[in-house]
Amino acid sequence: MKPARITELAEFYREALFGDTLPFWLEHGVDRPHGGFQTHLTREGRVWCTDKSVWFAGRATWLFATLHARYPQRGPWLDLALHGERFLAAHCFDDDGRMFFLLDRDGQPLRKRRYRYSEVFAALAYGALAEATGKTQFADRAADIFATLVDAMTTPAVSDPKVNPQVRPMIGLSPVMCLLSVTEALLPVLGAERCAPVIASATRDVLELFVRPEDQSVREAVGPDGGLIDAPEGRVMNPGHAIETAWFLLEVARRQGDDGLIDRATQILDWSMARGWDAQFGGLFYFIDVDGLPSPYLEHDMKLWWPHCEALYALLLAHHLTGRAAYAEQYERVHAWTMAHFPDPEHGEWYGYLHRDGTPSTTLKGGLWKGPFHVPRAQLLCLTLLEEMATSPS
Amino acid sequence: MKPARITELAEFYREALFGDTLPFWLEHGVDRPHGGFQTHLTREGRVWCTDKSVWFAGRATWLFATLHARYPQRGPWLDLALHGERFLAAHCFDDDGRMFFLLDRDGQPLRKRRYRYSEVFAALAYGALAEATGKTQFADRAADIFATLVDAMTTPAVSDPKVNPQVRPMIGLSPVMCLLSVTEALLPVLGAERCAPVIASATRDVLELFVRPEDQSVREAVGPDGGLIDAPEGRVMNPGHAIETAWFLLEVARRQGDDGLIDRATQILDWSMARGWDAQFGGLFYFIDVDGLPSPYLEHDMKLWWPHCEALYALLLAHHLTGRAAYAEQYERVHAWTMAHFPDPEHGEWYGYLHRDGTPSTTLKGGLWKGPFHVPRAQLLCLTLLEEMATSPS
Repeated sequence: MKPARITELAEFYREALFGDTLPFWLEHGVDRPHGGFQTHLTREGRVWCTDKSVWFAGRATWLFATLHARYPQRGPWLDLALHGERFLAAHCFDDDGRMFFLLDRDGQPLRKRRYRYSEVFAALAYGALAEATGKTQFADRAADIFATLVDAMTTPAVSDPKVNPQVRPMIGLSPVMCLLSVTEALLPVLGAERCAPVIASATRDVLELFVRPEDQSVREAVGPDGGLIDAPEGRVMNPGHAIETAWFLLEVARRQGDDGLIDRATQILDWSMARGWDAQFGGLFYFIDVDGLPSPYLEHDMKLWWPHCEALYALLLAHHLTGRAAYAEQYERVHAWTMAHFPDPEHGEWYGYLHRDGTPSTTLKGGLWKGPFHVPRAQLLCLTLLEEMATSPS
Repeated sequence: MKPARITELAEFYREALFGDTLPFWLEHGVDRPHGGFQTHLTREGRVWCTDKSVWFAGRATWLFATLHARYPQRGPWLDLALHGERFLAAHCFDDDGRMFFLLDRDGQPLRKRRYRYSEVFAALAYGALAEATGKTQFADRAADIFATLVDAMTTPAVSDPKVNPQVRPMIGLSPVMCLLSVTEALLPVLGAERCAPVIASATRDVLELFVRPEDQSVREAVGPDGGLIDAPEGRVMNPGHAIETAWFLLEVARRQGDDGLIDRATQILDWSMARGWDAQFGGLFYFIDVDGLPSPYLEHDMKLWWPHCEALYALLLAHHLTGRAAYAEQYERVHAWTMAHFPDPEHGEWYGYLHRDGTPSTTLKGGLWKGPFHVPRAQLLCLTLLEEMATSPS
């Protein structure tokens, strides 16, 4: 990538992050009277549902703590992170130590799910708070939540699977890649002795169980030994998810200086782009059936914001780590389509859900799944990487 | 409706049902070696997943038993109904008396859900079998399942709600309208003493709790006393569901000769068509937010086959019972759009899932939710009604 383009893109992301995305969420998404964050926002930033996502209590806290560590002069990030932490601590944990999934505006529990993703984002939040503040109380909290996560995600029985494991034993990619990501993020806080074995085993599980070179696919679910599940849940590939997994692995490989792992991770990226990119309308499909059979998921051919966020960062990172021009070219293709379709120039931030043809299916800016996370994370990661590329071009 | 059009439509449905829909399912959907029915069929009728729906074990059995009662000379319906019943009896009930939701090809249990809709369709199946054969063993089985249904659906605690009832107590339209429908269907088998009170109370619940003349809406969920739930699940209207409820009520009203109930039911139909019809592309939206706020349901603006099935029969029945030309006109509008977009002239039967613009999102002919039920039921109901209209025009 040419230096001028690196500079231009860095400026683009700086302006998008600090001039658009963060102001949108700061203006509309911080609930000072009741605590925590509102993510159910209309196109204009009006609250369309006052319920609160526990995932976003963690995700937004992580974002603001991370911003404080990297760009402390740019905004009141630490104050916002501590605002999030107070809500997390006060309302998001049940008496049994597990976390809720959904709360009402005041923080009363509405839903608790069998999955542990609330814990994933809370662990990220406490880890980032520990890094941002240096306080051991946050590091201890991160360690506690991390321990329950490792326990739950490596003990299938704990998570009470939906599908009868006596008849169809299955393991999912999501817990493994989440564990990989959260452990890599907590490494500076919890140390290598605690984290390195988990990173090694999650990396091995991803590569040996879910990644299939024989058909260039990444499966969302496989049998306990990596065997194929001959059902839609075993045939589905989620390109955005696979691409996110690829950049998690690239981060591990970068830190370890592991060129073999870079090769494996970029293969995943290659297959995901090849299978996931819509040649007719552009954009990344949400779900693909690897065997070309019908998808039972009604949103399968929609274009969602977050896979495009993952692709932007993954392609830029792959280009930086390999020096291959093909990744810069693919980056530009994804960048052009993404920026032509998702951002809302009138009211700011991004639409989240487009039809296959790129028209918005809904104009909401946030909900249970979209909030101050994927968009600002991608912008922050791309910006940081571009600043690094500007000083040490590949 | 003119007599010539009535004759033409009757012939259309007769040919569609006996010449297209039923042959498709008989050829591709009956699993003789393993029992029960395959509903996961591709456009061409190939099995794309061998898992078996417990709902469809009941639904298909109901369909074939009902066909035997009405058109015994037209096909091997009783044999197919008994084929379905053997699978129901052998595989679909757990040891605790509750039913499963999903089985593998051999009938081994994969999933059991908290809801009782498997029981709804099994009760319909055994009721229709009792009518078709006159056998008391089937009537007894229908009575047993019906008793568990009434118990579960009138005792909220039994169904273990997803949302914490201490913080947000809610009741749903689905159980009430299912109870109404199944009880009306079982009336000839179980008798008025058992059924009339349930029909009366379910009718009252629908009209007093879920139907809201003040804003011309039918809610999918309300508080226990009919209060509004200020959250997406309380604002959502499902036009297809409301239209189905309307024709269930019209059937009750027709049997009882209750003109007041006909008025209430046709109001629901009017509001559903007014809110649900897409003025831009045609077809019925899947979900509407009554307050015009964003929908969190990604499929909200898709056009699904089954609401169109419900609308065809509801509008025809409303026209017949009220004599109003407006319903015949609306029927023709729905008929024209439906028949232009859903049927597959090349391989038979209907597509199920269209984008908002009417193009197929997937070409599957069946899955967990689409199978030999809504399409043949609408064709059968319309045909029966048109035959009645031909002899006693409104």
